[in-house]
Amino acid sequence: DRPLVLIAGPCVIENEVATMRCAERLMTICNGVSIPLIFKASYDKANRTSVNSFRGPGMKDGLKILKKVKEALGVPVLSDIHSIEQVEPAAEVLDVVQIPAFLCRQTDLVVAAARSGKVVNIKKGQFLAPWDMENVAGKAVSTGNDNIILTERGVSFGYNNLVSDMRSFPILRKIGYPVVFDATHSVQLPGGLGGSSGGQREFVEYLGRAAVATGIDGIFMEVHDDPEKALCDGPNSVKLEDLPALLKKLKAIDAIVK
Amino acid sequence: DRPLVLIAGPCVIENEVATMRCAERLMTICNGVSIPLIFKASYDKANRTSVNSFRGPGMKDGLKILKKVKEALGVPVLSDIHSIEQVEPAAEVLDVVQIPAFLCRQTDLVVAAARSGKVVNIKKGQFLAPWDMENVAGKAVSTGNDNIILTERGVSFGYNNLVSDMRSFPILRKIGYPVVFDATHSVQLPGGLGGSSGGQREFVEYLGRAAVATGIDGIFMEVHDDPEKALCDGPNSVKLEDLPALLKKLKAIDAIVK
Amino acid sequence: DRPLVLIAGPCVIENEVATMRCAERLMTICNGVSIPLIFKASYDKANRTSVNSFRGPGMKDGLKILKKVKEALGVPVLSDIHSIEQVEPAAEVLDVVQIPAFLCRQTDLVVAAARSGKVVNIKKGQFLAPWDMENVAGKAVSTGNDNIILTERGVSFGYNNLVSDMRSFPILRKIGYPVVFDATHSVQLPGGLGGSSGGQREFVEYLGRAAVATGIDGIFMEVHDDPEKALCDGPNSVKLEDLPALLKKLKAIDAIVK
Amino acid sequence: DRPLVLIAGPCVIENEVATMRCAERLMTICNGVSIPLIFKASYDKANRTSVNSFRGPGMKDGLKILKKVKEALGVPVLSDIHSIEQVEPAAEVLDVVQIPAFLCRQTDLVVAAARSGKVVNIKKGQFLAPWDMENVAGKAVSTGNDNIILTERGVSFGYNNLVSDMRSFPILRKIGYPVVFDATHSVQLPGGLGGSSGGQREFVEYLGRAAVATGIDGIFMEVHDDPEKALCDGPNSVKLEDLPALLKKLKAIDAIVK
Repeated sequence: DRPLVLIAGPCVIENEVATMRCAERLMTICNGVSIPLIFKASYDKANRTSVNSFRGPGMKDGLKILKKVKEALGVPVLSDIHSIEQVEPAAEVLDVVQIPAFLCRQTDLVVAAARSGKVVNIKKGQFLAPWDMENVAGKAVSTGNDNIILTERGVSFGYNNLVSDMRSFPILRKIGYPVVFDATHSVQLPGGLGGSSGGQREFVEYLGRAAVATGIDGIFMEVHDDPEKALCDGPNSVKLEDLPALLKKLKAIDAIVK
Repeated sequence: DRPLVLIAGPCVIENEVATMRCAERLMTICNGVSIPLIFKASYDKANRTSVNSFRGPGMKDGLKILKKVKEALGVPVLSDIHSIEQVEPAAEVLDVVQIPAFLCRQTDLVVAAARSGKVVNIKKGQFLAPWDMENVAGKAVSTGNDNIILTERGVSFGYNNLVSDMRSFPILRKIGYPVVFDATHSVQLPGGLGGSSGGQREFVEYLGRAAVATGIDGIFMEVHDDPEKALCDGPNSVKLEDLPALLKKLKAIDAIVK
Repeated sequence: DRPLVLIAGPCVIENEVATMRCAERLMTICNGVSIPLIFKASYDKANRTSVNSFRGPGMKDGLKILKKVKEALGVPVLSDIHSIEQVEPAAEVLDVVQIPAFLCRQTDLVVAAARSGKVVNIKKGQFLAPWDMENVAGKAVSTGNDNIILTERGVSFGYNNLVSDMRSFPILRKIGYPVVFDATHSVQLPGGLGGSSGGQREFVEYLGRAAVATGIDGIFMEVHDDPEKALCDGPNSVKLEDLPALLKKLKAIDAIVK
Repeated sequence: DRPLVLIAGPCVIENEVATMRCAERLMTICNGVSIPLIFKASYDKANRTSVNSFRGPGMKDGLKILKKVKEALGVPVLSDIHSIEQVEPAAEVLDVVQIPAFLCRQTDLVVAAARSGKVVNIKKGQFLAPWDMENVAGKAVSTGNDNIILTERGVSFGYNNLVSDMRSFPILRKIGYPVVFDATHSVQLPGGLGGSSGGQREFVEYLGRAAVATGIDGIFMEVHDDPEKALCDGPNSVKLEDLPALLKKLKAIDAIVK
């Protein structure tokens, strides 16, 4: 078992300056605690609660920014795709192509992403059992590409709530691919604010520590230097200044269980 | 309140002959009980459990068959779309364009479907509360098209199981659009057979009667003349020969509550 | 299948006059719609949310009042017991001895209630699957008394919420005993008001109609002439004046499905 | 924050020799890893799935055995009570009186247990939200005894399944009392074997590590030297020989988060 990896970044690309600055700070923080970083940011939030929500700069401009981040900092970058047409341009820039949770059962999208030859991070749908991901992974692997990551981000638990089932990690790992815990989307309260999703940032640390203690390959967190002002998913984003202390604990727990 | 409408047909278009024959039998049955029919069949099952599952004839051939059914029998037809590109060709044939449950949060798809000017049937995601559909409907209505149908098809209840919350119907109806109960997908056991979804056909009648008793606008059922041999969703499809007796009861219950 | 029976009354015995008056009104209403009545009232609410909640007159005084109701009106009476010691005195008065949902797994209590020879109404725990009730019923039947009623009252669905799974009724009926739907506790929001349980009275009618449409033996409802002033479970009690119209619909639906 | 405590022992007192031997082995193991032990064993399993299940030696003989264990080994002992009458004799022997999860809402039982002056360990019902335990604790504290422990043991998640919500620990701790995680009952599959509950022993370690990583006061585990032969809850009991390695990891994680 290799040590824990961090996938982190802002929920959405707000603009080039903010994105670059966030990536730089994350690099510094990760170097400080010796945790490898994959930088994550979305160019389009395609499934927001309301039609009026901010969606990002779009694919073309967004990928340009991610390319700059990648070249300037030498950090691998990850973003999510929402249609087959996006796979090719995205794969030219991205190191990891991500399938959103709501789309994880769309056969053609998973297959197209896998055909790109890139690492594919498949988020587990909120409506799936952990063992259901074996068939989902099978769709990607049918292309010959088995560079797959499986990400747990909570499962539906009544209305407007998710629960993180810690049994999910050993079950997912048995499927045979690296397993990541998305600690910030897992504390979302979907639709919980009426016109947008609520979140419980205060639980990110607890869930993150718990998941790492089960033995996982990576942890995923959306971060922001001022979550109250974030244009997307602020309520469940981690404040950048809180990250170093959290990562130190995660790394220490990781060392014990591996 | 107008009397109950039936949306029914095979899960997937298996071939032209079988589809036409199914539609004819449904027309005869519906005429016999005076229930208006909208014929439903999918040309592509884009989110099957396994990559090896049968998916259907594809959009082009499938729409051709649906067009023939529509012209031969004079019945309105409904099918589901999976990408923005499909909206235009689908809208040329279909009377009702359907958004699959897993895709109900994809803003661009909902907006594109609504822009077609057709009636849009939006299936409620298994991961959503009934009141969450107000924002979903709002995405469609933002185009100026308010010919919307909202369809309940069960909500995640633990792993590999759905529950049909009967409170959902009065809540959905308050949003202001016709509400349909999908009585056959609601008895699915998602992923319950390992490589495919299981189903509990024996509960369709009970859930259907219950939903109609709450006062709804339509009922959705996938049917097959021999469900054991169906190429998709057989375990939860209703046998055609059982349909007349069931519809008679539904119609009688509907008359009491309206 | 015999026609629907009603089990109804106030949540708790508030005093003799109010209890008698409620029973009289229920008798009049039930005679008007030809539905047999079993009068229900609790002498002690032993598991309220908070230690400060009103609990009732206690067993001795409560049973005295129930005896008066029974003798004055000739109506069978039902109440719930909470310990083995209560079985004997309760069985002297009651026609139906009820096991509360939280206590349905307490072997000695179920066995003692069954040994009284009375009809035993066992409420299904919010934490049980419908098929789990076969073993619960088996505890009662082990005494030789098979006069058992099984009552569904909702199942835990996330936090502070219950859902009524309509599949439960055919499953429970297969166990072999009459099945009742508790339409008022099923709309409780357990602990939903902080210091007490909330409730959604507006859904009683919908859930009641739905359950009856599946084909059940009886319906259970807590009623009050002024639910806002009820000393227990007001938020989910049915207003007495709304009952006749509701019962008429239930009776009509019942006639269709039996 | 004080270091982690272990509450452990066999599910049920099978006989004096086996119970004493189990306690001795636990003492040795706990001394080896410097974790304080509270010895747990039940004298009566009052709510087994089936009426035919083994229940234990009964209160009188069971308490005698627990007294011997306590005096011989100098270890504090815990057991659960099921009626008010049991409180007095149980409190003469026990250091910690435990309220079973199904009974945690029985006001009189909680109050009587608290009146004994002993430490009261209240298990959180499978049907309760973590914040609901504030009112439950309030019933005990109303007696003036605030030596309370709150134990999480999973929450209903669909049928025949429990999930351990790791958010529960920080929420329960805010109520103000020590919080324990019951790592073996949390992996029960209630009623999952038809005539008895199933269990997933393989997940105890994962859930235990996760819970400790959130920062808790104690961990509760049922153990057996040969779980396959245990007379109760074998499927979710930890094999004694596996305990030392597990405890070492828990202790190391505990040290990081406190």
